[in-house]
Amino acid sequence: MNSEEIGKLSLQKHSEWRGKIAIRPTVEVNGRSDLSLAYTPGVATPCLEIQKDISKSYELTRRWNTIAVITDGTAVLGLGDIGPEAGMPVMEGKALLFSRFAGIDAIPLCIKSKDVDDIVRTVSLLEGSFGGVNLEDISAPRCFEVERKLKEVCSIPIFHDDQHGTAIVVSAAMKNALKVVGKKIEDVKIVINGTGAAGTAIGRLLMHSGAKNVIFVDRTGAITPSNPGVTSEHAILAQESNPMHEEGALADVLRGADAFVGVSKPGLVTPEMVHSMARDAIVFAMANPTPEIMPDLAKQAGAAIVGTGRSDFPNQINNLLAFPGVFRGALDVRASAITEHMKVAASDALATLVGDKLCADYVIPDPFDPRAVEAVAHAVAEAAKADGVNRI
Amino acid sequence: MNSEEIGKLSLQKHSEWRGKIAIRPTVEVNGRSDLSLAYTPGVATPCLEIQKDISKSYELTRRWNTIAVITDGTAVLGLGDIGPEAGMPVMEGKALLFSRFAGIDAIPLCIKSKDVDDIVRTVSLLEGSFGGVNLEDISAPRCFEVERKLKEVCSIPIFHDDQHGTAIVVSAAMKNALKVVGKKIEDVKIVINGTGAAGTAIGRLLMHSGAKNVIFVDRTGAITPSNPGVTSEHAILAQESNPMHEEGALADVLRGADAFVGVSKPGLVTPEMVHSMARDAIVFAMANPTPEIMPDLAKQAGAAIVGTGRSDFPNQINNLLAFPGVFRGALDVRASAITEHMKVAASDALATLVGDKLCADYVIPDPFDPRAVEAVAHAVAEAAKADGVNRI
Repeated sequence: MNSEEIGKLSLQKHSEWRGKIAIRPTVEVNGRSDLSLAYTPGVATPCLEIQKDISKSYELTRRWNTIAVITDGTAVLGLGDIGPEAGMPVMEGKALLFSRFAGIDAIPLCIKSKDVDDIVRTVSLLEGSFGGVNLEDISAPRCFEVERKLKEVCSIPIFHDDQHGTAIVVSAAMKNALKVVGKKIEDVKIVINGTGAAGTAIGRLLMHSGAKNVIFVDRTGAITPSNPGVTSEHAILAQESNPMHEEGALADVLRGADAFVGVSKPGLVTPEMVHSMARDAIVFAMANPTPEIMPDLAKQAGAAIVGTGRSDFPNQINNLLAFPGVFRGALDVRASAITEHMKVAASDALATLVGDKLCADYVIPDPFDPRAVEAVAHAVAEAAKADGVNRI
Repeated sequence: MNSEEIGKLSLQKHSEWRGKIAIRPTVEVNGRSDLSLAYTPGVATPCLEIQKDISKSYELTRRWNTIAVITDGTAVLGLGDIGPEAGMPVMEGKALLFSRFAGIDAIPLCIKSKDVDDIVRTVSLLEGSFGGVNLEDISAPRCFEVERKLKEVCSIPIFHDDQHGTAIVVSAAMKNALKVVGKKIEDVKIVINGTGAAGTAIGRLLMHSGAKNVIFVDRTGAITPSNPGVTSEHAILAQESNPMHEEGALADVLRGADAFVGVSKPGLVTPEMVHSMARDAIVFAMANPTPEIMPDLAKQAGAAIVGTGRSDFPNQINNLLAFPGVFRGALDVRASAITEHMKVAASDALATLVGDKLCADYVIPDPFDPRAVEAVAHAVAEAAKADGVNRI
């Protein structure tokens, strides 16, 4: 099926499904005595226990396993700002995947405001209802501020999947790819094209994992302090990255680069550009549905390893490998936050899963690899304990 | 079991259950082609359909069957202001009942603010996620303002169950009780003790159903324009009710009354007070867990019909008879609001269910009567159509 046919069939299926998740009782209520235990008058006692000690809400209600999947509908898939209600099929899909892959109860919610403080206030006032919050499809640069402010005021994990889920999977693939080509992360030059939610988070996590020479590029060219097109949001990025202050367009900085990470637009990378990269170049071209450069072209131009977001080529880089396990691990130890260390641990766990089969066409596990959730969850939980953000 | 034993067992059960509802997939995701339809890239097409026409959110997501159960934790059961997290066992219980009795997906949410505008803003920003909102256990008089403001800004049904659910069931029982004793609602004097959420709504719905002489009483005595203890919130009540401007304490206005409705405190009504009422007096003593007067005492003092909130006496007046059917009916016709007419229709449907078996000890169906949900839902849906608030 081509993408138009998939869309048509998906619409038809959504019309039949009328929702992809449902709320079901886990307790029977078949008479007065059931009612008196699950509801009034008996329920008063668990209520009072929580009043005495709020942490009991994780033991006496579903909070231990519940997260919210929250959007404002401003950056839904590649569709842009389509509005809160229109984002809900994606949020429901995400909730479906949280349940299917990690047994997590995820509540899809859309917020009818694009104002950062409105979103922060709404989510923070609901904090007591959840054990965590997965932010989704909120446009950059607002998403950075929403996440930063929520982390300040909430004591449950706040995780913007478009940033960190992507970053975890890309950095896992990058570590393995570097292993295949025999290079060290400290030594390589990595060019990231796209400075939205995903690109920024990928670069930061790679730097956190040891990368010393990361260059961000947007439509104004390489991000440097002297780039007149650099916005205030990029000023910090410019400080942290690009230590040689390389300037110019994508084609300029790509020369001699060891790796390219694209979270930008179809077709922005030419074979000539790949050809100008260092030997054994790594190309992760993740624009959807059409990559920055098609895998066969990139290989012909000399790339040693190519990854995309697509399932019809090797090395599919898909968030599904990360988000279920990240929240499973965070919920399992009742984490108060998701730290950088927890993200690196998730990434390392994914990279390790590839094991002995590591090769140019297999640097990242299949998105349906049944081992992924448990491996990521375990690593995240252990890292939470090491960081002291666990509460059980 | 006594109430202490029930509470203890309920706490133990809640510890075992760790939540009374769960979110489950309704769609299988067993491989890439499933993923491409339920999630990316196919899901973009239903998203765009909703962007073009927001009403499609009721067809392409679970919104058609989803409500929120929302509290601020300020008036939980009879426990008072115990905080948002501590209210959640009740909200989950309510969600359990919505699912069990009406197949509705109800999301329990607690809001960490007692500020009316905070609550209104939070709920209204989330409106696009739900097909309706059930407010729960929000203290009076804030609950009136929260509901009024939400109705102004939202185009989905807003229903404060502590007010209207109770009012629907009480007015059904009152209509049947009056039939048993051969009195007309237009002719009787009804005294309502308690002017919180429930008492106010009960009185208003009875007046809306034809009652001409309703007297509200609170701890300052009968509500009249001249009662110096009457608050500004009660000023309108004072205008609408008590046409004879009867003054004094509960015992004073109860003299000659045809019916007493108590949503107040245990033991406030003495046998002498019942004895002072009109012949064939109706006594609905609904304080929990101990009524304003015990049924046997009220009967001995001359009451013809007695109802309570308890399951161990005849005529149990329980919201469970109303809220599942009210929302089922409202969702079925995609109502934009729940009107007075819809509430009266729900009440009439419940009263009618009693049928030929009507007698002093059976003026209201059993809370587990399996016919109740459908009868109420049907009546509410028809009334919504008659009022033109249906959208399908």
